[in-house]
Amino acid sequence: MTPLERLRARVGRLGTRLCLGIDPHPDQLPHELSRDVAGIESFARGLLEAAAEHAIAVKINVAFFEAFGSAGVAALERVRGDVPAEQFVVLDAKRGDIGITAERYAEALFARLRADAVTLSPYLGGDAIEPFLRYPDRVVYVLARTSNPSAGDLQDLEVGNAPLHESVARWVVGRWPNEERVGLVVGATAADELRRIRRAVPNPGFLVPGVGAQGGDLAAAVEACDGALAPGLVSVSRAIASASAGSDWRQAAAASAKALADRMQEVSATLPI
Amino acid sequence: MTPLERLRARVGRLGTRLCLGIDPHPDQLPHELSRDVAGIESFARGLLEAAAEHAIAVKINVAFFEAFGSAGVAALERVRGDVPAEQFVVLDAKRGDIGITAERYAEALFARLRADAVTLSPYLGGDAIEPFLRYPDRVVYVLARTSNPSAGDLQDLEVGNAPLHESVARWVVGRWPNEERVGLVVGATAADELRRIRRAVPNPGFLVPGVGAQGGDLAAAVEACDGALAPGLVSVSRAIASASAGSDWRQAAAASAKALADRMQEVSATLPI
Repeated sequence: MTPLERLRARVGRLGTRLCLGIDPHPDQLPHELSRDVAGIESFARGLLEAAAEHAIAVKINVAFFEAFGSAGVAALERVRGDVPAEQFVVLDAKRGDIGITAERYAEALFARLRADAVTLSPYLGGDAIEPFLRYPDRVVYVLARTSNPSAGDLQDLEVGNAPLHESVARWVVGRWPNEERVGLVVGATAADELRRIRRAVPNPGFLVPGVGAQGGDLAAAVEACDGALAPGLVSVSRAIASASAGSDWRQAAAASAKALADRMQEVSATLPI
Repeated sequence: MTPLERLRARVGRLGTRLCLGIDPHPDQLPHELSRDVAGIESFARGLLEAAAEHAIAVKINVAFFEAFGSAGVAALERVRGDVPAEQFVVLDAKRGDIGITAERYAEALFARLRADAVTLSPYLGGDAIEPFLRYPDRVVYVLARTSNPSAGDLQDLEVGNAPLHESVARWVVGRWPNEERVGLVVGATAADELRRIRRAVPNPGFLVPGVGAQGGDLAAAVEACDGALAPGLVSVSRAIASASAGSDWRQAAAASAKALADRMQEVSATLPI
């Protein structure tokens, strides 16, 4: 099965859009874990074991491992190796560099770490994305509108009569038309924007961060994430990872993931097929 | 001495703007080196030993080490430890992510790898840059106009009456006015653009890639790289690294670096002080 076939199989089985986000910060670990690379590895593995069964995908943010240097990257390699084979694994890396360098990042993320999908920045244009698409069946999510407070600094600049992030979304779709392997990152923190971008580009699958701790609108995220070409993902990190800092953190994470998955399933059930 | 004091001391002593770029690709190593992580580590160390003395700074591209996973990052840690203490070390990583993630990337690049400076993407706005500036005295170079063929896909979109990359340059300068620690990446492949951006933002130091193998204009790069607040860098990678693939690669790299440094010194000597 290709990565997207696996993703579709999980969507069909679970009926939710929940993507489990893994961003282990040493200051936000359960009390029983050490504030070091061993602690973040244990936490990441514990979250996967407890909560991934409720999600259609897992998104691991590489920065939280890179912060511990080569020992952190070695921990990421082990954690990635432990993800069950039926999962769709997104490595959130937001890379963006010239062609020959992009080829090296693709080697790191697709060949070494065996990501099914990665997040990429559009700022350097097509050269920065093409080397990733040379890996058959792998998926990329190109940043359009992100969920952080300063996202609008650049992404909302007016280009023609639309904000830059909409130009980026249209550029991506124009450059790789009918390519199910090219999705977009569109944050959930502005529900109106999410709906507007979906109307502008009906085809690509969206990876939607920002639901949960960042305050994004869960229903709007679920309504907008699926594209005509590929299923969408709604990523939640802190609301699951920080459900409890006590010794019950695994159970609390599982319960939080289950509740979020169920809410997303309910929203999906109300949508026209 | 702070990193910028060290950079200024080297500019004063050498009178050039040459920054030695280290981007070791396994397919472009001298014949005597193995096409693996040991080969790229030996090559990077050999280039530093042979050519760094002619340069005011060293720019290491992290992707070429990350491509070998945790073993590659461990090699990068060793190579970085071997850079002479008087050098100004730029880690070319082009990171750009939301605040909490940017803080982790800053930990990786500034705390673990002890970079003096890093390259960053502007696409996520100020949140993605601020965590790096919390490290006292460290320097960031924000991408404005890059040197790759598809740079214009986004960077040349019209915003108001100017291309996006000029808006980015003006935004950076408006957001961190009179901050010598915030520079810009401006590619040398379009000399007219380089001059136009310099006129638009006279203050920041530029990191100018694209001279040498990418065909950028050396004189235009040297003329434009210095800002009123900070000295600029003109980065050359392949023209030095690929000067010879034979057993004389160290000597050839040293000679190429020396020739480039001298040409840049000559251009500098003709400029008004």
